[in-house]
Amino acid sequence: MGFKVGLLGLGTVGTGVGKILQSPEGRHPLLQAVELARVGVRSLDKPRDLELPSHTLTTDLAAIVSDPDVDIVIEVIGGLEPARTLILDAIAHGKHVVTANKAVIARFGDEIFTAANQAGVYVMLEAAVAGGIPVIQPLKESLGANRIHAMMGILNGTTNYILTKMQSGGDFDDILAEAQALGYAEADPTADVDGFDAGDKIAILTSLAFGGRVKLDQVHREGIRQVSAADIAYAQKLGFVIKLLAIAKLPPNNNNNQVEVRVHPTLVPEEHPLASVNDAFNAILIEADPLGQVMFFGPGAGAGPTASAVVSDTINIVALLKTGLTAANPDSETIHPLLACSHNSYFDVAPMADLVTRFYARIRTQDHPGVIGRLGTCFGDHEVSLESLVQTDVNDNLAEIAVVTHLVREGDFRQALNEIKSLEAVDSIPSVLRVL
Amino acid sequence: MGFKVGLLGLGTVGTGVGKILQSPEGRHPLLQAVELARVGVRSLDKPRDLELPSHTLTTDLAAIVSDPDVDIVIEVIGGLEPARTLILDAIAHGKHVVTANKAVIARFGDEIFTAANQAGVYVMLEAAVAGGIPVIQPLKESLGANRIHAMMGILNGTTNYILTKMQSGGDFDDILAEAQALGYAEADPTADVDGFDAGDKIAILTSLAFGGRVKLDQVHREGIRQVSAADIAYAQKLGFVIKLLAIAKLPPNNNNNQVEVRVHPTLVPEEHPLASVNDAFNAILIEADPLGQVMFFGPGAGAGPTASAVVSDTINIVALLKTGLTAANPDSETIHPLLACSHNSYFDVAPMADLVTRFYARIRTQDHPGVIGRLGTCFGDHEVSLESLVQTDVNDNLAEIAVVTHLVREGDFRQALNEIKSLEAVDSIPSVLRVL
Repeated sequence: MGFKVGLLGLGTVGTGVGKILQSPEGRHPLLQAVELARVGVRSLDKPRDLELPSHTLTTDLAAIVSDPDVDIVIEVIGGLEPARTLILDAIAHGKHVVTANKAVIARFGDEIFTAANQAGVYVMLEAAVAGGIPVIQPLKESLGANRIHAMMGILNGTTNYILTKMQSGGDFDDILAEAQALGYAEADPTADVDGFDAGDKIAILTSLAFGGRVKLDQVHREGIRQVSAADIAYAQKLGFVIKLLAIAKLPPNNNNNQVEVRVHPTLVPEEHPLASVNDAFNAILIEADPLGQVMFFGPGAGAGPTASAVVSDTINIVALLKTGLTAANPDSETIHPLLACSHNSYFDVAPMADLVTRFYARIRTQDHPGVIGRLGTCFGDHEVSLESLVQTDVNDNLAEIAVVTHLVREGDFRQALNEIKSLEAVDSIPSVLRVL
Repeated sequence: MGFKVGLLGLGTVGTGVGKILQSPEGRHPLLQAVELARVGVRSLDKPRDLELPSHTLTTDLAAIVSDPDVDIVIEVIGGLEPARTLILDAIAHGKHVVTANKAVIARFGDEIFTAANQAGVYVMLEAAVAGGIPVIQPLKESLGANRIHAMMGILNGTTNYILTKMQSGGDFDDILAEAQALGYAEADPTADVDGFDAGDKIAILTSLAFGGRVKLDQVHREGIRQVSAADIAYAQKLGFVIKLLAIAKLPPNNNNNQVEVRVHPTLVPEEHPLASVNDAFNAILIEADPLGQVMFFGPGAGAGPTASAVVSDTINIVALLKTGLTAANPDSETIHPLLACSHNSYFDVAPMADLVTRFYARIRTQDHPGVIGRLGTCFGDHEVSLESLVQTDVNDNLAEIAVVTHLVREGDFRQALNEIKSLEAVDSIPSVLRVL
C-alpha cells in the first residue's frame, strides 16, 4: 500500500524534503510506502537541485490540493497567502497536511484545526517551531502526565547568532550587517530582530503546552535592537548572558484563566542551561510537575533540519493511515486524540504590569555622593529590593549604575523608574531588561 | 469508556505513579479515563504515602497480570525476576505493558517484544532510559526521516554526580562515600559506578536508533573507578571535562552490519554540549542526517521524573485504545507501526581494537632529557600523532606526561602503549582514557 504526497513549494526546505523522499534507504522503513507524486512550484523552468519526472511538476497548486490521488499535502511555501487557502482547501478535500508555516498556524490555527477536526484529518507542524528539534511531538505525546508550569526558549536562530557574536564585542548594527552578508539574517530583518518570528512560535507552543490558544496581538514582544554592547558587558560582569527568550507561563495562583506569553531580551544566569545555547542553535526548556526541567536543544532552522521534521511528521501520518485511521471515517473516535488539536478556548494574556520578575536597569547619573542613596530610596518606596549593583565612571561628570533587582511586580518597578527618571541627579535610563 | 491499570510495585516510583493517577486535574484529559484498579505490593501492612481503597492492594501480583478487568499493567518493581515473568504473563493475557525496567528490557527485550507482537499488545519503556527525559518516543516518532549516525549520552546520574563533584577537587572514594551518605549512590554502587546501568540503557537506545538489537555482553563497559583526581586536573588543563559516556555509532564505511556500543569515561571538550551537563542530570545527544545534532537534557532518575514517563506512556496506550487499536484484534496492521518493536535481527558489535578515536594517557617517566623524544618515536611508529602534551614534575626523579592524541585506531594505540611501557625510562602508565 503506497501513500501519495503532494509537495507545495520547492525552495530549500522543499528540495530537502524531496531529497529525503527520494532516498529512503537507512531511514524509517515506512518511508518506502511514500511516493512524491506531485510538486507545486512557481516556475517550471527554474534549474533544480532535485531530479523529478517532468509530469510531477506543476504551477497549479490548487490542482494538487484537490487531486483525488494525493493523500498528504506538505506545505513549505511559507507566508500567509496562498498558504492559508491551500491548507484549508487540502483539508476540505480530505487531505492530511504537514506544514512548516509558523506564521499561518499562529494566525489561523483556530480556523485550520477546526476544519481539520471536522474533516477528520491531521495537521502536523513539528517543523513550524524550532526546525528539526522534536518539541511538538514530545509536547503532544511524552509529557501528558505533567502539569506544565512554564516553557521558555531560544526560538530564533538569527537573533541568537547576533547576541552570541555581541558577547565577543561589537555593536548590534555592525553584527547585523555581518549576519546579513553571511546569509544568516534577511535583508529585511524585522521578523527575526523585532521578535515576530519568536512570537509566532511561542504562541503555538503555548496552545500545545497549556491547552488553550492565545491571540497573537496579545503576545508581548520586544526585539533585540535595544540591546547595546554596554548591556552585554554589564551582564557579563554581573554573571549573566543576554538571550532573546520566548516565555509562556501559568501565573502562580492563577484563577483567571490567564497565561503569560512574552518575547523579550533577557539576562540569563551563566549557569542556566539556556545560557550556553549559542550561535544559531535553538533550545526549549520546559518546567513541569512532577518531571522537573527538561530541555531540547538543536538546529532551529535550515533546509536539512526543517525537512527532517516535515518528513518525520509525514511518516507519523502514514503510520496512522496504515492502522486504518483514515479520513474516510471521520468519526472523532478514530482520530488519534494526542495528535489532533483538541482545544478551542482562548487564554487571556496576563497584563505585563502584573508580571513578577527580576529586572536589570542601567541608569546614568551625576557622579556625586548620595545618588545611590536616592535611587535606593525610590526603589524601596515601590517594594523594589536590589540584588546587585555595579557603578562605573563614564566621564568626569557622569557615572553609570547597573542594578539587578530581586523579584518585583513589573508595574511597581516601572513606577519606581519613572520617579527615578525625574530625579535631578539622574541623566537618563538607557536600558531596562528583564532577568530570568 | 474507562481503562483499568494494574500497578506492580509501590516503591518511590510506584507511589509517584499512583499520585499522578489520583490527581488528573491539569494533566492530559485522557488521564480521566484511567483508573488505578489494582496495586501489587510485597506487604499489605507497610505504611504508605498514598491512600488506596483496601481492596485495591494485593500481594498476589500474578493475579493482577491475569485479571480480565485490567487493560494496562505498569511494572515498576525493578530487578530481573519476578519482573520478567510478570511482564510475559501480562502479555500472554493480552495486557499492554508499561515498564521502567531497563535491566529486563536490555536482557529479555527479544523475548518480550516477540511475545508482544504476537499478542498484539504494546510494551512501552520511556521510563527505562533517562528517567523523565523524552527520548524513546522521539526516537520512535520524531526522527524517522533521518539516518542516525551516532548517539551519545550521560545516562547515569550517580556517576555524573560523582564526576561533577570531583571537578571541584576530591578523590573518587571520598566522593562516593559522600554520595552514599546523601542517598545519591547505593550501598552496593556497582551497577552505577561500573557502568552496568548505562550499558543496559545504551543497548536499548541502540536498538531504537539503529533498528537492530545488541547482546548485552558485547557492550564494552568501563566504569569510573579508574578516574583519578589527577586525571580530572589534567583534563581541565587540556580543555576537557571527564564524563561517563554511553556511545553507540555506526562505524564509517561499515559493510559488516556492525555497530559500536560502549560505555567508558571520556574526555569531553569543554565547549561540547554534553560538557555542561552536571550533577545528577542526564542528556542524550543524537547525530543524524539531515537533522544534525539534537540534545535532550533533564532529570535522569527520581520518583517524579520516572513516574512522569510511566504515566505518559500509559496515556499513549489509552489514546491508541480509544482509536480502537486493541489487543482484541491482533492483526499486525492494527498495531501502530511506530510504537511496536519491528526489528528482530542482531548487530555484531565492532571490536574495540578497530575503534577510531582520540586518546588521553598519563605516563610517568624518569625526569631526564630525551624521554619525550622516545615516547614520540614509539607513538609515531604506530601511526599515533599527538595533539597536545603537558609535562609536570612529580618529584626529583619522576615526571608525569599527559598526552592527547589525534584520531587513531585503538589497536595501534594499545600497541604503542605496550612498547612505551617497556621503555627503560618509563615508570608506569597510570591512566588511559578515550577522548570525544
